[in-house]
Amino acid sequence: MEPASEAPSLGRVVLTGAAGALGRVLRPRLRPRCTLLRVSDIAAMEPPASGEEVVEAALQDRPAVAGLLQGMDAVVHLGGLSTEHPFDAILQANILGTYNVYEAARRHGVKRIVYASSNHVTGFYRQDQVIDATLPARPDGYYGLSKAFGEDLARFYFDRYGIESVCLRIGSSFPEPKDRRMLATWLSYDDLERLVLASLTAPVVGHSIVYGLSDNKASWWDNTPARHLGFRPQDSSEPFRAAREAAQPVLDRDDPAVIYQGGAFVRMGPFE
Amino acid sequence: MEPASEAPSLGRVVLTGAAGALGRVLRPRLRPRCTLLRVSDIAAMEPPASGEEVVEAALQDRPAVAGLLQGMDAVVHLGGLSTEHPFDAILQANILGTYNVYEAARRHGVKRIVYASSNHVTGFYRQDQVIDATLPARPDGYYGLSKAFGEDLARFYFDRYGIESVCLRIGSSFPEPKDRRMLATWLSYDDLERLVLASLTAPVVGHSIVYGLSDNKASWWDNTPARHLGFRPQDSSEPFRAAREAAQPVLDRDDPAVIYQGGAFVRMGPFE
Amino acid sequence: MEPASEAPSLGRVVLTGAAGALGRVLRPRLRPRCTLLRVSDIAAMEPPASGEEVVEAALQDRPAVAGLLQGMDAVVHLGGLSTEHPFDAILQANILGTYNVYEAARRHGVKRIVYASSNHVTGFYRQDQVIDATLPARPDGYYGLSKAFGEDLARFYFDRYGIESVCLRIGSSFPEPKDRRMLATWLSYDDLERLVLASLTAPVVGHSIVYGLSDNKASWWDNTPARHLGFRPQDSSEPFRAAREAAQPVLDRDDPAVIYQGGAFVRMGPFE
Amino acid sequence: MEPASEAPSLGRVVLTGAAGALGRVLRPRLRPRCTLLRVSDIAAMEPPASGEEVVEAALQDRPAVAGLLQGMDAVVHLGGLSTEHPFDAILQANILGTYNVYEAARRHGVKRIVYASSNHVTGFYRQDQVIDATLPARPDGYYGLSKAFGEDLARFYFDRYGIESVCLRIGSSFPEPKDRRMLATWLSYDDLERLVLASLTAPVVGHSIVYGLSDNKASWWDNTPARHLGFRPQDSSEPFRAAREAAQPVLDRDDPAVIYQGGAFVRMGPFE
Amino acid sequence: MEPASEAPSLGRVVLTGAAGALGRVLRPRLRPRCTLLRVSDIAAMEPPASGEEVVEAALQDRPAVAGLLQGMDAVVHLGGLSTEHPFDAILQANILGTYNVYEAARRHGVKRIVYASSNHVTGFYRQDQVIDATLPARPDGYYGLSKAFGEDLARFYFDRYGIESVCLRIGSSFPEPKDRRMLATWLSYDDLERLVLASLTAPVVGHSIVYGLSDNKASWWDNTPARHLGFRPQDSSEPFRAAREAAQPVLDRDDPAVIYQGGAFVRMGPFE
Amino acid sequence: MEPASEAPSLGRVVLTGAAGALGRVLRPRLRPRCTLLRVSDIAAMEPPASGEEVVEAALQDRPAVAGLLQGMDAVVHLGGLSTEHPFDAILQANILGTYNVYEAARRHGVKRIVYASSNHVTGFYRQDQVIDATLPARPDGYYGLSKAFGEDLARFYFDRYGIESVCLRIGSSFPEPKDRRMLATWLSYDDLERLVLASLTAPVVGHSIVYGLSDNKASWWDNTPARHLGFRPQDSSEPFRAAREAAQPVLDRDDPAVIYQGGAFVRMGPFE
Repeated sequence: MEPASEAPSLGRVVLTGAAGALGRVLRPRLRPRCTLLRVSDIAAMEPPASGEEVVEAALQDRPAVAGLLQGMDAVVHLGGLSTEHPFDAILQANILGTYNVYEAARRHGVKRIVYASSNHVTGFYRQDQVIDATLPARPDGYYGLSKAFGEDLARFYFDRYGIESVCLRIGSSFPEPKDRRMLATWLSYDDLERLVLASLTAPVVGHSIVYGLSDNKASWWDNTPARHLGFRPQDSSEPFRAAREAAQPVLDRDDPAVIYQGGAFVRMGPFE
Repeated sequence: MEPASEAPSLGRVVLTGAAGALGRVLRPRLRPRCTLLRVSDIAAMEPPASGEEVVEAALQDRPAVAGLLQGMDAVVHLGGLSTEHPFDAILQANILGTYNVYEAARRHGVKRIVYASSNHVTGFYRQDQVIDATLPARPDGYYGLSKAFGEDLARFYFDRYGIESVCLRIGSSFPEPKDRRMLATWLSYDDLERLVLASLTAPVVGHSIVYGLSDNKASWWDNTPARHLGFRPQDSSEPFRAAREAAQPVLDRDDPAVIYQGGAFVRMGPFE
Repeated sequence: MEPASEAPSLGRVVLTGAAGALGRVLRPRLRPRCTLLRVSDIAAMEPPASGEEVVEAALQDRPAVAGLLQGMDAVVHLGGLSTEHPFDAILQANILGTYNVYEAARRHGVKRIVYASSNHVTGFYRQDQVIDATLPARPDGYYGLSKAFGEDLARFYFDRYGIESVCLRIGSSFPEPKDRRMLATWLSYDDLERLVLASLTAPVVGHSIVYGLSDNKASWWDNTPARHLGFRPQDSSEPFRAAREAAQPVLDRDDPAVIYQGGAFVRMGPFE
Repeated sequence: MEPASEAPSLGRVVLTGAAGALGRVLRPRLRPRCTLLRVSDIAAMEPPASGEEVVEAALQDRPAVAGLLQGMDAVVHLGGLSTEHPFDAILQANILGTYNVYEAARRHGVKRIVYASSNHVTGFYRQDQVIDATLPARPDGYYGLSKAFGEDLARFYFDRYGIESVCLRIGSSFPEPKDRRMLATWLSYDDLERLVLASLTAPVVGHSIVYGLSDNKASWWDNTPARHLGFRPQDSSEPFRAAREAAQPVLDRDDPAVIYQGGAFVRMGPFE
Repeated sequence: MEPASEAPSLGRVVLTGAAGALGRVLRPRLRPRCTLLRVSDIAAMEPPASGEEVVEAALQDRPAVAGLLQGMDAVVHLGGLSTEHPFDAILQANILGTYNVYEAARRHGVKRIVYASSNHVTGFYRQDQVIDATLPARPDGYYGLSKAFGEDLARFYFDRYGIESVCLRIGSSFPEPKDRRMLATWLSYDDLERLVLASLTAPVVGHSIVYGLSDNKASWWDNTPARHLGFRPQDSSEPFRAAREAAQPVLDRDDPAVIYQGGAFVRMGPFE
Repeated sequence: MEPASEAPSLGRVVLTGAAGALGRVLRPRLRPRCTLLRVSDIAAMEPPASGEEVVEAALQDRPAVAGLLQGMDAVVHLGGLSTEHPFDAILQANILGTYNVYEAARRHGVKRIVYASSNHVTGFYRQDQVIDATLPARPDGYYGLSKAFGEDLARFYFDRYGIESVCLRIGSSFPEPKDRRMLATWLSYDDLERLVLASLTAPVVGHSIVYGLSDNKASWWDNTPARHLGFRPQDSSEPFRAAREAAQPVLDRDDPAVIYQGGAFVRMGPFE
């Protein structure tokens, strides 16, 4: 990446979910580009570095979330549950929690939110389909449903209140692809950073949806409608292909997790 | 309508929201076509007629909803809030409530749900646009958001568990159109009945979305993708045009309620 | 048609091209519905009836056109050349003339224009294609080009200044279909009146394009995207079919006038 | 139907498959409108009426087919197998046979062919999908495959040699709908006649594909792209609904014949 | 670029607008590839080099334009006004002028025109939309309108007379991007040259429209439909990003010039 | 290419058409990646190397083809005629032959077929059109027709029996582009290998269609819908451009072979 020192400041930015896997990746990468980086989570976080504030808060706690956004310019909203869970947990953390973030943005004049949505919004499309973000949602679980809800919420807050959002349908963001499916869905940490920065700095985003994936050889997602964001991934899953194929030489093509884009998510539950 | 006596039975049907405006319309029309009509609401209802059961239940009450669906063949789910409200009320009645209905259907093997969605799922499209149900949601409030959520939930329960749904994006179902906007959005009670019956009896519906409107001269909604349902409206708002135009001779074309399909919903809120 | 006396007034309306064939048809039909009908042409017109003003003016005469629109609510712009002509004549009457009308509307706050465009905007589509108004223009001559220009001009005046337009891509409006092609393209005078009234009275039209044709059995034009206007033709060319087919029993299928929608227009010119 | 005596002649027309069910329906209806109706089949046919010629011929017999088309203006090609069969039989009767018809048309200057294709070209679309003829083929058997081949062959003969075709994707043409599926797919004999006449008389058809179905309340097929043909069905399956539903009160929604548009065809074979 | 000496000749080429900014860029780049380069403008030009002819001519002067094209193989038509002006000036230089060029091409058998259209044909799309050239025009002023007219004119001359055109919707062609908007719209001079050469040498172009922009990281334009031209930009605005962002650290997101693709053009005028 | 030794085995693979031009290219490239490579042709082939079996067989010989596929995992089906021929030859080798291959796959449980289709399936699209594989076939001859048939057959065997196919619409696979058309259609042998390997190893392919072409500067084919396959061509026709253009400096733009994508195929025949 270009040295942050050359770039203009991102201003005063809130990072929710700062104690999560991606939050810990993004926090040190965002900090040097912000006037202030206010990080938040329900779990314990690293103490504040210079230019940071650390706020422990549950997303369900409306006043706390309102306080979190006060005086800020933008939010990178990674908080909430990031995998499949029983509905009630999802309802609180993701549905109510994301509402609280947008409502706080409205009250305090925050004008842009980068929202960590998920490829599980469209997890029930097949792996032999190439889709773009204009197609109807086909969520693969309660988690995916909550992310579809968040995208619609973002749409409403833009149409009604002019608050801009970029909804990132993140594929699989890990240090490296962990299985054969991730050869298609992998988003490297550097490309994640590029994606979040593009989303924060693009002049006009309205309500945009973009799939978050590296420049993988095979993929199911066409980001043409989001080309205005200027996200150009630089990494690829290809160097990991041989190892992942060797570890999974045979796939069961009758397994829904192999057939559908959502992978194992599509056969989680029910939660009795 | 054709005399119900000639038609095959709809089987054992649950009607939620039976005390609401449309519930009271549909209840007597469905009853003679059902083996059993089990009606439910949180509010007081008429006592059971022959072939009916009356169950008072809140949709947020998961065990009550589960009980409601036990042993039934289909659900006509009108329950929950049917106009704009603060988010927390919507979250309980519509989001959690609809989840409870679908989860009960899964547990008890109910295979089809006719779901009262709303035109407010797409209320932020303009009145000079003609849309169909394959376009992205543009909800005009928390109510519309909850209905978009319900449609996605229905999609998931079909993709994952094979439970079929018809999502009815109901326009304006009243005895007659109440204002100029309703000349485009009106759904007569007879056409509402036709729509619900088509949705219950079509052989295969998968996950279908259909706009509920009469054969009005002007409209914003193209139901071509739902033609497999066999819904053919017979009524029209035209006889009411002169009176409605006389009552509202001038429209303020800068008013969002005039510009957008959702009408006055698009400028409700915020709820401070 | 419904008796005009029942309907609300259309307000103060300008009718250009009042001496032309369609202008003479529309003038007496619009008059009883208007507070004031100001009719204009470059040619001689009938003297004013009660509720009318008659203004002789050339569309190229910018001040005259400005005066024509002053104090008016809407324009039905039929003026200019309505058939193929050498370019210079088209440039003056249709391109410059229509600019003058829109610019006058901007200066004098006229908020809606019903613009007589033409099916010749898309005359180079084939007669075995069914098109709608979202496809690119394929004009069949200078006349069609000038109408494509007018539609784009209307788009600009709406995007930039909020002046609404309905562009009527009129098929063939005559007392009856004159040849076999017109079995597909015919617009009866009653349906023309319905179309103009719908365009003047629809609450919100933004920039709309609609093909003007009766409910003919065969047609090349799909008006689904303009369904918000509420135009429902009531007539059909079918009663004239036998006579027109008898008069033209054989068609030369190598003749461009038979192959393309524009008919004989597609082989007019060049004008040496 | 309008009395044939008023209409212009269809000229010299070949009818293949004249001994089949639909051939026997169409023969007496076409005869009075033709200068000459030359009927053909591999099976025995009624003796020739006035204005008719009867030619026994197998479609696989190339010289015979060539002779059949000599001196003719148009062909209504119903011949070949009209239900599922082992591949070799289909190959001979439908693939080779239809090639022979088109090649004979090329050699003898016949300029239009009305080709009996079938809804089984798209039989593997679901019954809750509404499709039009621009979507890719999804044939449900060898019969459907042969009809997809015939449509492509027709496309080639138009692109290469200018021979026009209307491909009729006939639904279920019987005296009345025989089961619940046919409530959606039924084509009455009168509407079949209307369809064939429209296909023979439309001025320009190029290569057109149209679904052949009556104006049934529910359907899976959208004929908008074929509106230029002027086919307007007048009949409906609705009067037969109650009886068909009573005869099949319960459908097995796990049965591919219930799920897919092709009905029982989708589970025929394999032919061991 | 590849040395011109290796490439086949472009033949006898007219370059209009040779005294303009892009004309001065292209003239020396085209000259070595042409048998004859005839350059023209209304303003003074450099004297002819070897292989050049210099013709001073106004585009409104029909005989002069006719003479200009006589005996030539192709035209690169950059002439006319290249920024927003009052309508009358646009009408003369761009609308009448471009007509004169196409009519001269028809008279003198010139078979291909590379036409400098503009991104301002679609300037009223939003900067968060990615569009391609099949969408309807949304011009942002009289200049953009005249370019939309030119594209339609080119369509007509191809459909009617077989004269091929490539319409270049040029973004911002300058030595370097001058502001933040141009980070998306920049077309380097080398890429401009690539674009013009591709347009002149592609074997078959019919009527093609292509956006002229470099391989910028973010863009609003998808050139997939023009891939047959073989235009592959090699440059990018990225090296200029830091400087441009530093110079414009804050954008007013309520400014139409920031919201719409046309930038400042969208708020020029009216010209009182 | 990556050394084959690193990659997992492709298993037991049949290669038909092994004596043809592309068969001879692919045979040595596939062999080291297969557990067993069984090669077949009607013509004489090189004797078997280690890991190979050589089976002489005609594709029309059903039992021979059945034997060929017994016990195998996948087929690369290049066999049959690969250029235009009279219909009867095409019928036997390509239509019947490909049926035999799919039917053998069904009988013996072979689950994936890589099918050599052809760009001639869409040869009657124009060279100034950019198409993708979702558009209707427009075959340019009997050869193209047989390939369209094969693609539909593959679709049926997937929908009905779950046998996966990748249909390769191969452009022009030669050591180098042989004429100007092939600058757009060339597929290098290395890219052919990449394409076949991607098709054999992609986890899920269902029924996929992909154009086989290198990364040529200009092309008519958009492979976005096949991006899930992971085919990324590495070669380009560009190094051959100058020579090919020098050899064909002038193209006759009235020649159908220049206008249409299929090149000279579009004017082959008829075979009298």
